[in-house]
Amino acid sequence: MFTLRPIGFIESPYKNSSEIPKGLGVKHDARGILKVETEFAPGLADIEGFSHLFVIWIFDRNTGFDLTASPPSDNRTHGVFATRSPRRPNPLGLTVVQLLSREGPNLHVSGVDMLDGTPFLDIKPYLSSVPMETLRRGWLAEAEARKGMGAPPFD
Amino acid sequence: MFTLRPIGFIESPYKNSSEIPKGLGVKHDARGILKVETEFAPGLADIEGFSHLFVIWIFDRNTGFDLTASPPSDNRTHGVFATRSPRRPNPLGLTVVQLLSREGPNLHVSGVDMLDGTPFLDIKPYLSSVPMETLRRGWLAEAEARKGMGAPPFD
Repeated sequence: MFTLRPIGFIESPYKNSSEIPKGLGVKHDARGILKVETEFAPGLADIEGFSHLFVIWIFDRNTGFDLTASPPSDNRTHGVFATRSPRRPNPLGLTVVQLLSREGPNLHVSGVDMLDGTPFLDIKPYLSSVPMETLRRGWLAEAEARKGMGAPPFD
Repeated sequence: MFTLRPIGFIESPYKNSSEIPKGLGVKHDARGILKVETEFAPGLADIEGFSHLFVIWIFDRNTGFDLTASPPSDNRTHGVFATRSPRRPNPLGLTVVQLLSREGPNLHVSGVDMLDGTPFLDIKPYLSSVPMETLRRGWLAEAEARKGMGAPPFD
């Protein structure tokens, strides 16, 4: 067992999960603020140089988990580890955000898909991408194809 | 405070951290196995369709943290959240692996950069990439430029 503590909290326009865009082809461009606790702010030095960041956060308003999930992008169920369902054995979220600016311990970002007040555990620089031509996207690509969708969405 | 438990352990060729390739332009193509605990194996259904996975894991042989880090790819220090240093406030690792095959609860992957026996907390499908032309890579790009390196590495 490992005990982890938030390094900050997210200011987001979403007050409840029904407001968060979900499903196929959805684009996350909502703006928000990663508010890092003052004691950890020195850890942000030089972060302005990166255009995109990984944020690891906690689905803190969720309890329990299921081993299968029915994502909003498909009408079939899949193993929870093949989805981004919040009801996971460890309630960890992972989001790629675009860094717009930094104001002391506050990172202004776009691409938030978390609820307002969500605690986060870590920020890491996004250093490289998997080339699109080598990426296979399993049931998601199949669900898109069934709906006549072509190009894959970008986060 | 949040308490998380491993959903499995990684079989890796690396027995100690000095064996893990580090630094500029390094390519991680080592093979390993994500051994998911049997109780969570039903959560892997349909994962075979994805070429790449995110693994969130614990730097379990690490104690303490620093707010600045001197990465092996640079001779300058940076804020810990602008690096992948293991000495972070929450000792979380994040790796993109390529899924080669699945054997029941065992996922054979390439791209491991964890030590043998590392506990992991979550697996998520890699659904989209940030287009390379929109990615800025801060101090890492500068360190590469100082060494006369051109193209960005892919994980």
